[in-house]
Amino acid sequence: MEKKPIKIVTIGGGSSYTPELMEGFINRYKELPIREFWLVDVEDGREKLEIVGAMAQRMWDASGYDVKVHLTLDRREALKDADFVTTQFRVGLLDARIKDERIPFSHGMLGQETNGAGGMFKAFRTIPVILDIVEDMKELCPNAWLINFTNPSGMVTEAVIKHGGWKKCIGLCNVPVGAMMGEPKLIDKKEDELIFQFAGLNHFHWHKVFDKQGNDVTAEIIKNMYDRKEDDGTPANIHNIKFLREQLEQMNIIPCGYHRYYYLQDEMLKHGLEEFNGEGTRGQQVKKTEAELFELYKDPNLNYKPEQLTKRGGTHYSDAACECINAIYNDKKIPMVVSTQNNGAIPDLAPDSIVEVTSYITGKGAMPVAWGKLDSAEKGWIQVMKAMEECVIKAAITGDYGLALQAFLLNPQVKGGAIAKTVLDEMLVAHAKYLPQFVEKIAELKEQGVESKDPVVMDLMVNGH
Amino acid sequence: MEKKPIKIVTIGGGSSYTPELMEGFINRYKELPIREFWLVDVEDGREKLEIVGAMAQRMWDASGYDVKVHLTLDRREALKDADFVTTQFRVGLLDARIKDERIPFSHGMLGQETNGAGGMFKAFRTIPVILDIVEDMKELCPNAWLINFTNPSGMVTEAVIKHGGWKKCIGLCNVPVGAMMGEPKLIDKKEDELIFQFAGLNHFHWHKVFDKQGNDVTAEIIKNMYDRKEDDGTPANIHNIKFLREQLEQMNIIPCGYHRYYYLQDEMLKHGLEEFNGEGTRGQQVKKTEAELFELYKDPNLNYKPEQLTKRGGTHYSDAACECINAIYNDKKIPMVVSTQNNGAIPDLAPDSIVEVTSYITGKGAMPVAWGKLDSAEKGWIQVMKAMEECVIKAAITGDYGLALQAFLLNPQVKGGAIAKTVLDEMLVAHAKYLPQFVEKIAELKEQGVESKDPVVMDLMVNGH
Amino acid sequence: MEKKPIKIVTIGGGSSYTPELMEGFINRYKELPIREFWLVDVEDGREKLEIVGAMAQRMWDASGYDVKVHLTLDRREALKDADFVTTQFRVGLLDARIKDERIPFSHGMLGQETNGAGGMFKAFRTIPVILDIVEDMKELCPNAWLINFTNPSGMVTEAVIKHGGWKKCIGLCNVPVGAMMGEPKLIDKKEDELIFQFAGLNHFHWHKVFDKQGNDVTAEIIKNMYDRKEDDGTPANIHNIKFLREQLEQMNIIPCGYHRYYYLQDEMLKHGLEEFNGEGTRGQQVKKTEAELFELYKDPNLNYKPEQLTKRGGTHYSDAACECINAIYNDKKIPMVVSTQNNGAIPDLAPDSIVEVTSYITGKGAMPVAWGKLDSAEKGWIQVMKAMEECVIKAAITGDYGLALQAFLLNPQVKGGAIAKTVLDEMLVAHAKYLPQFVEKIAELKEQGVESKDPVVMDLMVNGH
Amino acid sequence: MEKKPIKIVTIGGGSSYTPELMEGFINRYKELPIREFWLVDVEDGREKLEIVGAMAQRMWDASGYDVKVHLTLDRREALKDADFVTTQFRVGLLDARIKDERIPFSHGMLGQETNGAGGMFKAFRTIPVILDIVEDMKELCPNAWLINFTNPSGMVTEAVIKHGGWKKCIGLCNVPVGAMMGEPKLIDKKEDELIFQFAGLNHFHWHKVFDKQGNDVTAEIIKNMYDRKEDDGTPANIHNIKFLREQLEQMNIIPCGYHRYYYLQDEMLKHGLEEFNGEGTRGQQVKKTEAELFELYKDPNLNYKPEQLTKRGGTHYSDAACECINAIYNDKKIPMVVSTQNNGAIPDLAPDSIVEVTSYITGKGAMPVAWGKLDSAEKGWIQVMKAMEECVIKAAITGDYGLALQAFLLNPQVKGGAIAKTVLDEMLVAHAKYLPQFVEKIAELKEQGVESKDPVVMDLMVNGH
Repeated sequence: MEKKPIKIVTIGGGSSYTPELMEGFINRYKELPIREFWLVDVEDGREKLEIVGAMAQRMWDASGYDVKVHLTLDRREALKDADFVTTQFRVGLLDARIKDERIPFSHGMLGQETNGAGGMFKAFRTIPVILDIVEDMKELCPNAWLINFTNPSGMVTEAVIKHGGWKKCIGLCNVPVGAMMGEPKLIDKKEDELIFQFAGLNHFHWHKVFDKQGNDVTAEIIKNMYDRKEDDGTPANIHNIKFLREQLEQMNIIPCGYHRYYYLQDEMLKHGLEEFNGEGTRGQQVKKTEAELFELYKDPNLNYKPEQLTKRGGTHYSDAACECINAIYNDKKIPMVVSTQNNGAIPDLAPDSIVEVTSYITGKGAMPVAWGKLDSAEKGWIQVMKAMEECVIKAAITGDYGLALQAFLLNPQVKGGAIAKTVLDEMLVAHAKYLPQFVEKIAELKEQGVESKDPVVMDLMVNGH
Repeated sequence: MEKKPIKIVTIGGGSSYTPELMEGFINRYKELPIREFWLVDVEDGREKLEIVGAMAQRMWDASGYDVKVHLTLDRREALKDADFVTTQFRVGLLDARIKDERIPFSHGMLGQETNGAGGMFKAFRTIPVILDIVEDMKELCPNAWLINFTNPSGMVTEAVIKHGGWKKCIGLCNVPVGAMMGEPKLIDKKEDELIFQFAGLNHFHWHKVFDKQGNDVTAEIIKNMYDRKEDDGTPANIHNIKFLREQLEQMNIIPCGYHRYYYLQDEMLKHGLEEFNGEGTRGQQVKKTEAELFELYKDPNLNYKPEQLTKRGGTHYSDAACECINAIYNDKKIPMVVSTQNNGAIPDLAPDSIVEVTSYITGKGAMPVAWGKLDSAEKGWIQVMKAMEECVIKAAITGDYGLALQAFLLNPQVKGGAIAKTVLDEMLVAHAKYLPQFVEKIAELKEQGVESKDPVVMDLMVNGH
Repeated sequence: MEKKPIKIVTIGGGSSYTPELMEGFINRYKELPIREFWLVDVEDGREKLEIVGAMAQRMWDASGYDVKVHLTLDRREALKDADFVTTQFRVGLLDARIKDERIPFSHGMLGQETNGAGGMFKAFRTIPVILDIVEDMKELCPNAWLINFTNPSGMVTEAVIKHGGWKKCIGLCNVPVGAMMGEPKLIDKKEDELIFQFAGLNHFHWHKVFDKQGNDVTAEIIKNMYDRKEDDGTPANIHNIKFLREQLEQMNIIPCGYHRYYYLQDEMLKHGLEEFNGEGTRGQQVKKTEAELFELYKDPNLNYKPEQLTKRGGTHYSDAACECINAIYNDKKIPMVVSTQNNGAIPDLAPDSIVEVTSYITGKGAMPVAWGKLDSAEKGWIQVMKAMEECVIKAAITGDYGLALQAFLLNPQVKGGAIAKTVLDEMLVAHAKYLPQFVEKIAELKEQGVESKDPVVMDLMVNGH
Repeated sequence: MEKKPIKIVTIGGGSSYTPELMEGFINRYKELPIREFWLVDVEDGREKLEIVGAMAQRMWDASGYDVKVHLTLDRREALKDADFVTTQFRVGLLDARIKDERIPFSHGMLGQETNGAGGMFKAFRTIPVILDIVEDMKELCPNAWLINFTNPSGMVTEAVIKHGGWKKCIGLCNVPVGAMMGEPKLIDKKEDELIFQFAGLNHFHWHKVFDKQGNDVTAEIIKNMYDRKEDDGTPANIHNIKFLREQLEQMNIIPCGYHRYYYLQDEMLKHGLEEFNGEGTRGQQVKKTEAELFELYKDPNLNYKPEQLTKRGGTHYSDAACECINAIYNDKKIPMVVSTQNNGAIPDLAPDSIVEVTSYITGKGAMPVAWGKLDSAEKGWIQVMKAMEECVIKAAITGDYGLALQAFLLNPQVKGGAIAKTVLDEMLVAHAKYLPQFVEKIAELKEQGVESKDPVVMDLMVNGH
């Protein structure tokens, strides 16, 4: 049976990661015949879209495949009859991320892109937009797949599937890819000599490792994480310090890199505060890197993904998206670690929750592998994180301030008490432009004179997006 | 990495299905290098073992591969250092099956190999033996996989994994294979153009079907099960009458062939009673077929699986076993429908129950795909069946008569009331030889003069196994 | 704090049980000051309403309390500002019950008021009416309590609470009262020397018994149910034969009288068929008794509950209603066995299911006591029954024929197969007048000539209600 | 039926709360006829036992009832044939509590008797002892009830019931009593005009309040917690600051006083640190109060509970114990808030967990009221706390250091990272005398030179118990 060529739409097409995405599709073109490619962005991202869009077209032209890259600010025009929609947008751009980081840090709490107060605010800004996209898709491309790699990927995917009612959605993350690439070296194996099984939430999952004879080699990997020097695949954007050895030995499953924010909360907070008080937060650093990347992308002779992109924390994200689309299109039945509907895979969570688990990717989407019950400690962690996510998502949809406050108090990265409310209030005001659902509360806060006193944030309020 | 050649042990090696098993391994020899093959049976099965064992050796010799088929009545000799143990034994041989069928029918209830009173008694006889085998394996081949296709496969697998504590066990069934081969024709597709997903219990599962674009084509298949003439893959041993159309349309998932005993209880019972009163029950028919097969097998020139074997209800069973072993040995990650630990795959059942679901077979065994919550009717059916299975398994292990009675009363194929006890009691006496766990109760019943009055059973008590 | 006097409305006020209800309120008048009493019925029940209404007024007059009994066919007039609404109506009167019994029996299945096909059809007729009543209550008496003793009480209560969204509802049953009155005698105790705990569904619950020192005396009661002669409190309408002793000993909890239809299915079916073929079904018998009762009620000198009423199966039902209302009004915190929202009391069922469990009745309603997990057999039974109830309720609300068929097939009293559909279809046609939700399907069936051939049913179709 | 007079044994009889206990029994003597009273303590508590024991006898003598108070250091002598055993012991006396508080505070974390690191260590010390007591009870008084008010009451009760297998155990707490006494005043009601329903864990529960007409008045109470001045019943030992109003309004259930440690973590920590750096921690303060109390108790003329005792945080605890024993002995069926087996009462937790919920206290113990599902935020909180408790209990029983570390990291009061390990290690060393299960790890830590540098702790290591 002849398969029809594919229309792919990327929302947030002006992202600096777009070249990786292009490379991924170019490498898979023979299996995955793309008819047309649409990069969509908003007015604020127009310049980036044009730069990276031109480079994307150069990459396709250099590939020898005849693929047209369309650029547009009109989302609905792009979505019409799409087969796959990928989302990698960032509401409020990097300026919003910097506020997400600096306001919590200014009160002595972790400021991070997807964890703590920052991660919750990224969800507050993103979820209303993704639900709008879903409404457009219902009308314009009702059979399309939505491949989300907009962070916080787990909460965004839960909003799409559980609240938006769009079942054809898979959430992606690059963190498992890094672990699967890094850990085999620790026991002198290659990636394809091991079997990995993951379960948890996005940026909050654990995994076990087996050899091809079915022997559990997790303990051996854990041992060598301490006894040997090799990198274990922790993402580049995470301050890489060692987990407490006795803890990992007790668990006998391996946490993801992001677990450091919880298991090593003190060290990570201190490191973050140092950056906050010194060179600037991660978002500030990335903003510089991005500017450099876009300078590179402007070069009319550049027609391949530059090395610099690979060194960022988000590397492999786009490649995972290409791989996932390929697996769906060709019913490849390959295992990937994706955010999908639980369906019981983690029985300690509700069947309609979104979880991130090893799944086989087929023509009908992700087939999540049932993991079974977690031990007490992991169960407690995942349940509190999911409950927090539920509060965040509901608050993002309804604009319920009390629920946002509940989410803050439940989040292990937020200190309980009036300080939580202070951070919440300052962030609401700082992100006012992107939080229409909270409009009344924000007006009230502004009247009370609430505002962040962090100088960088204050500057962004005037000169940023 | 060089893989070590394999030692395979088949308990119940004297089965008439052994040639299918040999054929399966011969066909896969290039991927699955077998070092030695052991066929084990008990004294009562010695003759069959010798006949089929000789034929098995002829098949290997004809294949050109240098594989030695060992025959033994000493299970422990065979198990030593095994890599894979397959179980296909039948405690009490076909004579026991005939009693399983005739006693219930003689009281107006369904007598069937794996359902109703017969299926429960097959479990009573088999579970103590399989748990003995597991104990031997713990000592003699602690790293081996146990691939069970002894019926009732689901209950036997639950006994092994949950009660015997042997995790490296997969239960197999040929029923899904039949459906996946038959149904595509109903919508003019080939098997590899469709994606099947199964969930339920052994001989009590449902499935949905999707095309490669992820569209649900289940309704279309259901429609054509009524509107067209093609066979839908129902096993040869099941009286093939149509399900109630309105029911299937409401469910929008497809039941397995064995569901007829429940959804079409009246028709199946009547058909069974006709056979019981006429040509003889299925077991009696099979006994004749088997005798014919063994006559064939005696032919010293026969060195391939004869056509006659393919027509039996159990066809594809052995092939599924070979495929499963191949998938484990080579970490093939292929989807198969197997009995494995639930782990949440069916959230309406306990995580430690054994279920039969689509699983990806890897080097570490079955990765069950999480199905999600069932609708009310299917939920009710599966919960009552699993509860019945739990009673049966516990009664099989403990010899608790009251629990056996509870299982009988809960089983939808058994009429409630004193009649249930009558059938239970007659069957206990009839199978006394193979039910050491019930020895005291049986002695008491014998004293009371309990015995089946069915002439065939009475004859088997004297002249049968 | 002075409490305001109460307005009570009884829907189905023309019931022969109304005098028991009056007696109950008269006996509790000092605690429960009734302002006015409204008896509501429909046109078909007008005559009965007038007879029993006049008698009710005579009873109050004789009591010396100044309470006015209003009679009306206008439900909305009555509901205005009600404090308590009790429901004891019977859609289609006893004629409908007779059809519920005779059609299944005519096909060799149990025909019974609340179990099997009959119980499901009683639900199909009743649930749309109760949901209409709930809608009226939302408008006319939004603070009122709905005390339901219309059968099938469990399903009707689930419809009200879960689907109608009316939380202030308690479902009642007389069966537990009978057990608590009967069983103490078996061990030479008085009722107030024992502690009972019940859990299950309406007409499908079990209980345990303890003495006041907390010792479990269940086994002793079970023993004496066989060793002694005393009555155990089985309702008068249930053919009273003994449960299988070994079963009860294994369970070590005591089933309710109605469990006989399941645990002793064969005997109960045979007994029912004998009545069906002989003196007439229970409904036919009751119809005669009722006629006699109404003759008595006509006596202008009768101003007390006559002895004859006490001998019926429904005795204590109305008294339970009075007791429940008293407990709510006076926050008495007394234990009663009622149908209420599960909330986890039976963890083997969903928290939003309605269950029948020992509850403490307070000013805010029923406080259900958490029972904990059931053993396998009881778990299986209750799960299949609840799943069946869910199908029935959804079919009753939506008129989904396929779902009604699923409920039939799942119900242990209904034989699986085409025969189930035959009974379903004949009953749909026979009850057409009271099943507006199935109107299209019934039209189709009538066109096909579907009708019951039972002569009594045929007569009722012409001459009955 | 004549009831036999009662033998009561109090483990930890030398507690300063014993006079309250005596007063409670004296007040209830007519309903609860006590035969003999045994106060048991350990050698370290001998002096206190003698002082308070003499006073207890004086109280009984003054009451006019003939009750003998026995004092003993031989627990087994006392337990023989006991009817009720109450436990109020404190392993390591107040010195241990001071270490529990000071070591965490010395590292900037909350040090508190039942929460955070201190609460976990109290469990580590207490659980092995309570399990020893249970073993003695199995032998010496197999029908006795164990009424536990040793903190952490919830974890201790879970150890007894789930791990010790002693079902006749109820855990008590005074916190709900305080709320039920305080809150009615906020809405101008008396306690007996309201209906309270509690659910959660010990020191971590929420409640709702209804008037006698069943109206939910929770919101009104919450409103007046902010708008009015009256005390809300927060225990005297908890720094009484207001919860965040928007949070409580969102929840619409009322948290217990101890929730401040979580919802107002920042303020509570700061307040604790002030005390730590100033007047001394709560334990240090209590030590002084206790010394004063014992001085009072020495007065041979004092034969009633002195006013000073009432002002302590633990007031009402002993009275709750008397009330509970009375309710069991007399099957009073009164509602109390107790720690008991969940059984589904909180469906978001496992049925075999111990929870603290409104229960009716009967002759067979606590009948927990099923609460139903919690909202997301409360669900997340309770699940993480229960998971932490599970880790603590298992670590307390097994001495598994890794699990203790996991509990620390999961506990919201403990900062994640190496600092958690530091606190854990210092506390293990500081409490070495009472932690035989951790003996090897402690030896290792001592060898490494681990010790607390807090001067008070260092002094206690030399001069304390």
